[in-house]
Amino acid sequence: MTADVASRIRRVQASMVGQSVDALLVTPSADLRYLTGYDARPLERLTALVVPAASEPVLLVPALERAEAERSAAALAGMQVLLHEETDDALAMALDVVPDAALVTVDDHMWAARVLAIQAARPTVSVRAAGRLLAGLRMRKGRDEVASLRQAAAAIDRVHARMGEFLRVGRSEREAAALIAGAILAEGHATVDFVIVGSGPNGASPHHSVSDRVIEPGDPVVVDIGGSTADGYRSDCTRTYVVGAEPDAAFAEYYDVLLQAQRTQCDFARAGVTAESVDRVGRRVLADAGYAEFFVHRTGHGIGLETHEEPYIVEGNQLVLEAGMAFSIEPGIYLPGQHGARIEDIVIANHEGVERLNTTTRELSVLEG
Amino acid sequence: MTADVASRIRRVQASMVGQSVDALLVTPSADLRYLTGYDARPLERLTALVVPAASEPVLLVPALERAEAERSAAALAGMQVLLHEETDDALAMALDVVPDAALVTVDDHMWAARVLAIQAARPTVSVRAAGRLLAGLRMRKGRDEVASLRQAAAAIDRVHARMGEFLRVGRSEREAAALIAGAILAEGHATVDFVIVGSGPNGASPHHSVSDRVIEPGDPVVVDIGGSTADGYRSDCTRTYVVGAEPDAAFAEYYDVLLQAQRTQCDFARAGVTAESVDRVGRRVLADAGYAEFFVHRTGHGIGLETHEEPYIVEGNQLVLEAGMAFSIEPGIYLPGQHGARIEDIVIANHEGVERLNTTTRELSVLEG
Repeated sequence: MTADVASRIRRVQASMVGQSVDALLVTPSADLRYLTGYDARPLERLTALVVPAASEPVLLVPALERAEAERSAAALAGMQVLLHEETDDALAMALDVVPDAALVTVDDHMWAARVLAIQAARPTVSVRAAGRLLAGLRMRKGRDEVASLRQAAAAIDRVHARMGEFLRVGRSEREAAALIAGAILAEGHATVDFVIVGSGPNGASPHHSVSDRVIEPGDPVVVDIGGSTADGYRSDCTRTYVVGAEPDAAFAEYYDVLLQAQRTQCDFARAGVTAESVDRVGRRVLADAGYAEFFVHRTGHGIGLETHEEPYIVEGNQLVLEAGMAFSIEPGIYLPGQHGARIEDIVIANHEGVERLNTTTRELSVLEG
Repeated sequence: MTADVASRIRRVQASMVGQSVDALLVTPSADLRYLTGYDARPLERLTALVVPAASEPVLLVPALERAEAERSAAALAGMQVLLHEETDDALAMALDVVPDAALVTVDDHMWAARVLAIQAARPTVSVRAAGRLLAGLRMRKGRDEVASLRQAAAAIDRVHARMGEFLRVGRSEREAAALIAGAILAEGHATVDFVIVGSGPNGASPHHSVSDRVIEPGDPVVVDIGGSTADGYRSDCTRTYVVGAEPDAAFAEYYDVLLQAQRTQCDFARAGVTAESVDRVGRRVLADAGYAEFFVHRTGHGIGLETHEEPYIVEGNQLVLEAGMAFSIEPGIYLPGQHGARIEDIVIANHEGVERLNTTTRELSVLEG
């Protein structure tokens, strides 16, 4: 963790002052890791970063996690670590750091039980979700973060490059997924986040996970996989393969259209255009070829310390993309009951266009099977 | 998923009526899986089970997850599945299922942004955490659930039985942990939830994860590992090993005390005694031997679809244990700067005592290393 967490804290405090927010409470989450470098598990014992708008932040942790907290980037940079014992009222201790706060923001994923406990303990305080206060910082990646995303993408590309080992006629999706999960770890990830293997008709369900369906000759297979590296940054890449025989003509035809749509979106996206416009240019290519109704989801999502984060590449999101934003471009075509295809790359926006972090071939690959 | 989700819904509705709760909203979580058999990922698109106190529940899901939702136990049992498209206001759709609700409860882990959005959309509605409404059901395990926990425990026991392959003098904690993670999957888990390998002084930090520290001859090594099986039930078992040479005399002495404390707790625990009393009997054994100050955490936690859930075995918890409750008994002794030890079994309470699900030896094992 080389990130300068102290400067991130200063930037969030500046935003807090601008929005009249008195305090920010952050429980274990990507937000906590971003602001402190501390990768705490979200458990029932309270861990919370308390950031007052105008004074020094405090990291409150269970006493038995002291050693881990003190090794975090934030603690090493001098942040105070406050300990609570098993029978302490930890939430009261967190609120006591900001006794006069009138407007408190919390991380978007804080547990409901905690938000409601804060409201009950401080009935006169306004509680709001931090939302853009943190997302605004997190979606603009620094150079270190881009390097981490590039490393994660290279690791998942190595798994895709080996797909011929995993997808075989006669093997079930579940069996293939277990092998892929092993490869995700072996190729340099610390965790496996998800493995989607959608063969034949299962490929027509965008969020299909795996099943006991056995791969048949000529099956298109959607493989959407991702993990996180030791520093917490995520990979996410989809390729659609055909296994063991040529696919049917309908698939080959729409796969080409999909390839063209994805390329058009990658060519179009850059700093200065809106998120929704990237979605629209892809949707238009598909519509022109008669496939509008078969592209049933948005084009993409931001990625970083979470697999899905801002910016979302979706109709209605008028956010103007900026250099350093990282997101997926992943159009799909899904023919219910038959098969489907999706092509996904993680990209980093710059002023000239985007850098595609995933680089394995997007041309239709027929694996030997 | 053989559980009768319909009967769980009926039981939660009966509790709601008893507590004048008009509606329950449950987002992806162990609670959702418990009530519907649906293992949805917690993502930004809203998935929510809406349970009115006195009418039929509805499962609201993103349209692109339709196929998965319709395969859930709840949908197969006839629950209505309602779909929302990418640009719909999904939260408004969920609240429209219960237009007249005055008191709404939400799952304890619902995201803050969603709880606060509910409050903003319905300013006159009272929102509360479901808390005991669901925990009360979930902590009393049914026969199917006990069978699943037994299967998970057997899988993690097989990993512990192979520990001599993984812990070696000259190998780092991180390297050993990677091998252990592979074995957790190979021995029958669907996911690796955590791998703690605390060697030498790192064993004195109860929530140490892993580090690059290399195992030395005579090191005590705390190995606390767990995963989940395909049906979502968790394993969690700790054994403390010594690697490559006899440990120092201080360790051997306190390890025996710890073993006695853990045995005393397992002999004492049963339906009808309080959670805190199980903690106390172990603490007394350690105190009598002069180690009171080195047992720095509670005795245990419930386990089921989550690794940590109710009942917590901790001072202050006067809950009376019941037959079918599942929890850990895991006292520890930690000598800062030197080493530590913990022994953990998952147990199921019955009227005569407890069934220990973990059965590998608890006697001090010196691995060849």
